[in-house]
Amino acid sequence: MTTVGILGGGQLARMMALAGAPLGLRFLVMDTAADACAGQFAPMVVGDYRDEAALTEFASRVDVATFDFENVPAESAEWLAGRIPVFPNPRALAMAQDRLAEKTLFRELDIPVPAFAAVDSRAALQAAIAEVGTPCILKTRRLGYDGKGQFRIKSPADLDAAWDALGAQATTVGLIVEGFVAFERELSVVAVRSREGEFRTWPLTENWHVDGVLSASLAPATADDALIARAVDHARKLAEALDYVGVFALELFCRDGELLANELAPRVHNSGHWTLEGSETSQFQNHLRAVLGLPLGDTRMLGQACMLNWIGAMPDALPVLDEPGGHWHDYGKSPRVGRKVGHATLRADTQEVLAEALQRVGVALGREAQVAPVIERLRG
Amino acid sequence: MTTVGILGGGQLARMMALAGAPLGLRFLVMDTAADACAGQFAPMVVGDYRDEAALTEFASRVDVATFDFENVPAESAEWLAGRIPVFPNPRALAMAQDRLAEKTLFRELDIPVPAFAAVDSRAALQAAIAEVGTPCILKTRRLGYDGKGQFRIKSPADLDAAWDALGAQATTVGLIVEGFVAFERELSVVAVRSREGEFRTWPLTENWHVDGVLSASLAPATADDALIARAVDHARKLAEALDYVGVFALELFCRDGELLANELAPRVHNSGHWTLEGSETSQFQNHLRAVLGLPLGDTRMLGQACMLNWIGAMPDALPVLDEPGGHWHDYGKSPRVGRKVGHATLRADTQEVLAEALQRVGVALGREAQVAPVIERLRG
Ligand SMILES: Nc1ncnc2c1ncn2[C@@H]1O[C@H](COP(=O)(O)OP(=O)(O)OP(=O)(O)O)[C@@H](O)[C@H]1O
Ligand SMILES: Nc1ncnc2c1ncn2[C@@H]1O[C@H](COP(=O)(O)OP(=O)(O)OP(=O)(O)O)[C@@H](O)[C@H]1O
Repeated sequence: MTTVGILGGGQLARMMALAGAPLGLRFLVMDTAADACAGQFAPMVVGDYRDEAALTEFASRVDVATFDFENVPAESAEWLAGRIPVFPNPRALAMAQDRLAEKTLFRELDIPVPAFAAVDSRAALQAAIAEVGTPCILKTRRLGYDGKGQFRIKSPADLDAAWDALGAQATTVGLIVEGFVAFERELSVVAVRSREGEFRTWPLTENWHVDGVLSASLAPATADDALIARAVDHARKLAEALDYVGVFALELFCRDGELLANELAPRVHNSGHWTLEGSETSQFQNHLRAVLGLPLGDTRMLGQACMLNWIGAMPDALPVLDEPGGHWHDYGKSPRVGRKVGHATLRADTQEVLAEALQRVGVALGREAQVAPVIERLRG
Repeated sequence: MTTVGILGGGQLARMMALAGAPLGLRFLVMDTAADACAGQFAPMVVGDYRDEAALTEFASRVDVATFDFENVPAESAEWLAGRIPVFPNPRALAMAQDRLAEKTLFRELDIPVPAFAAVDSRAALQAAIAEVGTPCILKTRRLGYDGKGQFRIKSPADLDAAWDALGAQATTVGLIVEGFVAFERELSVVAVRSREGEFRTWPLTENWHVDGVLSASLAPATADDALIARAVDHARKLAEALDYVGVFALELFCRDGELLANELAPRVHNSGHWTLEGSETSQFQNHLRAVLGLPLGDTRMLGQACMLNWIGAMPDALPVLDEPGGHWHDYGKSPRVGRKVGHATLRADTQEVLAEALQRVGVALGREAQVAPVIERLRG
């Protein structure tokens, strides 16, 4: 009997446990919140990730550890890795936690990135804006998620406002300025690498964000083979450079046929949720297979899939449950503004059937704006 | 937040909880054994189904109840149904618990059945053998499962041996003699009926038993439309006669193109496990949708699927995990002779690809005999 420990007890841990149960696995989830939603289906250790007593208990009860939450302190991950196998390795985690380290690595690996510059003072911010140009975005180097910790700079005149908003964090989590990319599309490569170095990707996914938070994903993305090959190649180079084991997502901006790397998410990823029904093997099961040294499952698609995120509160389930290809995912969380509380996946055999289903669901839920860009792409 | 109570905490309850989690449901499982495998993913009430204190606690913590175990005492089901909604209804459960009541209902509904006769004494057994003819089978009326409580009678000379084996149960669970059916095939209809009376079936499934226990299932069964229509019609008549809500399986013998009803299993069924990967909506999720009054999900197939049962102990997982369409289900049970401990489902787009996968898995696991009849059917 193998017990997998998961640091972080949100929806990713929850879906991992549900997908791993058929492999005969047991789970133990560690989270700071006693009501973390993964705890509804797996036992928990409640405690701070820096609390050595809690970490010791966690380590003593699991055979291997992985992450639902990428911002587990790097030292805690290192501490654990000294005691039990931890995948992905703490170095990969630490790199992905720091936008500056990440972008520097992308550049080293010849993966194109938006212009960027580190910022540790008001003067450095001024220099960075001059170097990168406007429009640009000031972001915290660490601990950002769902677009939090970002300030958009339209012109050099926004310098003071930007510094007022985030300057205090220059010496805590650090800051970075990134050139604003007027992208046509956002894409992600969801990929998995095994302990033996086998590398597989799911079909390329197109993503739409609203206010910095993922709103919808479509797979497969409509893209030509050369672009797909480049995206996959970027992901493979990163995985190899980091000796990465498990699932990760590489987020890309696409502008004028050029791919610019935005960030690497060192875990199963929201843009891969469609794999639960839309692929032979889900990202959740393949992450566990990789972490446990089992053979990777097939990542081929089953038809066309669109994932719609539910933010804040769950909408009415009936319009989705009424769809032949409609699948509902309620994370069992209480509603809260901006919180990811669930998602739906619509699957269909053809693009047009998927577009029609999205249309019906969008109208029934009064969410025409959420489905519109996906429908436009499908019918494009 | 809705909590579904499940009486019985075996693999069926376990898979139901895993399939129901995405609907935002919580579960409470009741079982006599504290180590019932569903307890690994759902909270439990441990107690005897006749223990009113345990039942009271169970009822107080759930919104609706259903079954993993069909031999919950009918009185306990009735008692619960007086307090909370229970699906399927206790009358349907009681009928399916009694082979005599079941076969009598089949006959009333013009659903062909093997010859049968009730037995309550040695003299009645003699008369039954004369009436039904040999070969025939003496079975307990109640509490039989996986071929247990059965004695095969080849000729009238076996009367004493049969009475010695099961006679003591004539006045406890009751006995029945059934004509032995020299069937060519065994089929099952896995069906679901909603609270509103909507009725759906998954594609017809062919099943192979070894020593009375299911060994392999193949879907869709190769059968002509008229036969499929008859099988579905039988299932629909039964569901309507019983006002059945939820998933059930109707097991059928096929002999000379004729369908004879063997039994109705009033729950999700082993011959429907392939629906987890082989269908748009699994039997587990559709059972919950029905029980909760939600719209039924699409029961269409995704390709071809074969389920292989693992009895006694789990074999090596690698040959199945290595298959592109290989899916593993370890119920987290300890090994025990005759125990259903897990299953695998192989899925493929065509019959030949499925046959090849079965061949490889059969050879790798030394289970050629288990896969042989399925391969023969696929290539037949
Ligand atoms: N340099 C940029 N140019 C244009 N848009 C950007 C840029 N950086 C971020 N965005 C927009 O904001 C979204 C979120 O940004 P980013 O990925 O940096 O945030 P995050 O907080 O790390 O979010 P998450 O990890 O949840 O995706 C991006 O997907 C994109 O839509
Ligand atoms: N009358 C019969 N003629 C021929 N074979 C039979 C007959 N009854 C049972 N069998 C064989 O034994 C198997 C199990 O029998 P049955 O379905 O009655 O048992 P059970 O204990 O109720 O099993 P389960 O509910 O687990 O399927 C059947 O699937 C069939 O292979």
